Amino acid sequence: MSGGERMAAEIAEQPAVFESIVARRGELAAVAERLVAHGPRFALLAARGSSDHAALYTKYLIEVLLHLPAGLVSPSTTTLYGAEPDLSGVLYLTVSQSGGSPDLVEATRVARDRGALTVAITNTPGSPLAETAEHAVSIGAGDELAVAATKTYTATLLTSYLLVDAARGGSGAAVAGIGELAERTLADSAADVAAASERYRHVERVVTTGRGYSSATAAEAALKLAETSYLGARAYSGADLLHGPVAAIDERTGVVAVTSRGRGGEAMRDVVAAVRERGADVLAVGSAAGEMAASAQIAVPETAEEVAPILEVLPLQRLALELSLARGGDPDAPRGLSKVTRTR
Amino acid sequence: MSGGERMAAEIAEQPAVFESIVARRGELAAVAERLVAHGPRFALLAARGSSDHAALYTKYLIEVLLHLPAGLVSPSTTTLYGAEPDLSGVLYLTVSQSGGSPDLVEATRVARDRGALTVAITNTPGSPLAETAEHAVSIGAGDELAVAATKTYTATLLTSYLLVDAARGGSGAAVAGIGELAERTLADSAADVAAASERYRHVERVVTTGRGYSSATAAEAALKLAETSYLGARAYSGADLLHGPVAAIDERTGVVAVTSRGRGGEAMRDVVAAVRERGADVLAVGSAAGEMAASAQIAVPETAEEVAPILEVLPLQRLALELSLARGGDPDAPRGLSKVTRTR
Repeated sequence: MSGGERMAAEIAEQPAVFESIVARRGELAAVAERLVAHGPRFALLAARGSSDHAALYTKYLIEVLLHLPAGLVSPSTTTLYGAEPDLSGVLYLTVSQSGGSPDLVEATRVARDRGALTVAITNTPGSPLAETAEHAVSIGAGDELAVAATKTYTATLLTSYLLVDAARGGSGAAVAGIGELAERTLADSAADVAAASERYRHVERVVTTGRGYSSATAAEAALKLAETSYLGARAYSGADLLHGPVAAIDERTGVVAVTSRGRGGEAMRDVVAAVRERGADVLAVGSAAGEMAASAQIAVPETAEEVAPILEVLPLQRLALELSLARGGDPDAPRGLSKVTRTR
Repeated sequence: MSGGERMAAEIAEQPAVFESIVARRGELAAVAERLVAHGPRFALLAARGSSDHAALYTKYLIEVLLHLPAGLVSPSTTTLYGAEPDLSGVLYLTVSQSGGSPDLVEATRVARDRGALTVAITNTPGSPLAETAEHAVSIGAGDELAVAATKTYTATLLTSYLLVDAARGGSGAAVAGIGELAERTLADSAADVAAASERYRHVERVVTTGRGYSSATAAEAALKLAETSYLGARAYSGADLLHGPVAAIDERTGVVAVTSRGRGGEAMRDVVAAVRERGADVLAVGSAAGEMAASAQIAVPETAEEVAPILEVLPLQRLALELSLARGGDPDAPRGLSKVTRTR
């Protein structure tokens, strides 16, 4: 057994998962209707780990598409310090694939008690979180057995998109063919991913970077690489990277730059140029990858910018998997990874 | 010349800077009075780089001490995507030592146009940001010449604390002697910092971690180490770390655990035990460091938990400086570090 079979299988399931989510758009639209009727004045999002990156994406959707202020909260202000904010008129969105993290359940319960409209996005109907929130939205990704989250991450993105899109009166047009595009992304990127895995086999340090919607992809890619490949991988927004951390980038750094067509990708052009100038090996990933002055690229089909993160991350999941194997690891058996956060 | 003189000098200035800020408490209380009169329904914070970590600390203060919901915003939703949220009744706090980042200035201008009460915390009175916000609060740290921010970071924390404390009717009692405590922290930790620098001289990967208020210290320490020492350093909340990334921690990882007395530090006990079990070298830093099952420690004088981050980071700044020198670098001349983010 070569290892990584579970993770590989779950990565491959994503196109079918996407199709089933799109087919359930009506259910999501019904929840969206209730959100709109409630007329929230702003949104707060709570999550941990990979779900925190899905929440970051959702925050952008809420701010840009719904024109509502939105912020990521720290569950511990409630669970450790007993903060008691007035949350009337607040949309409180909790994202957790397991729906079992005690601190997220408690933070959601407190938010509901304090007047928020609580919505849980989980992969586990009937979980404590789904039971605690007023509305529970299931991502329907099926059991996730691999320890590194893949299909639950992208299923959360797609579900969040459909929810927010319905809330602004959209019809989900931008993701109508997302299952087929995902299939194509995985098939067409296989050779480039294998080449990138070879390239980064001996790298010591990886920095991932993106802007706008794609900041979430950069954060998730760094976490995946750190979890599965024992790499010192960290993510920076392209804007933050130029501010300071660019100093730590040199010939020994692998930079993964997420660059899809649109305003976020356009703003990455200077970032790619700056890290290349410092001698870094730059792998551009996304629908605008071919337009960047990168060392290597992984192309992804073009979509509306706000849904690009659903596809961009697919080859990066495969890269994490293949790099882990190439470095002698087994991403299905990283030591110490547990699916449910038990922290309080 | 051995290098790092500027950074060393600015680290050493902090006790005096703290005293001058405490002496100006009256000015901050006057601004706080206007915030309270405005009666904000929630707070949004915008920042980049080190200031983003200061904003994270301020978010905890606002949530826990003022019982107001608070979230970190992404300036790019406004500057890249033109989001137009209704910000009436919102406290919009922008943190930037230079006050010159075009995207923060624009985000603040848009926030003010859209009805927010805008407050800028900067080290540069008369800067574009200070001119754009309705209220400008100066941290008065004096010129910062070293490229890695040190005194402007802690001065921002202390200023934010005094502002929030005044808004809840406090008298600043918890930071009355903070200048002298800072002096003692730097003097008493010198030998432990030198030992830690020797210990981590050849480390390839550093993970920093903390919970609650001290999450900000962990994030800032990782950034400082990455900027000055070319290390693959990344920060995790203690809660997130146990969720997944603990898998990437092994004998070759240096873990800096920020552990001060209080609820955040208490919640770190399990985290320290978990990473130790995986063979990591754990350096505990804070007033509860001696109570942790760590490999080494750097003690910090005890304070109220909510002001501990102002002291905890001091020996970590020194560690970044000394480690950079020990590894043959010069923290005053990291390549490519610029003080003002010009990204839009």
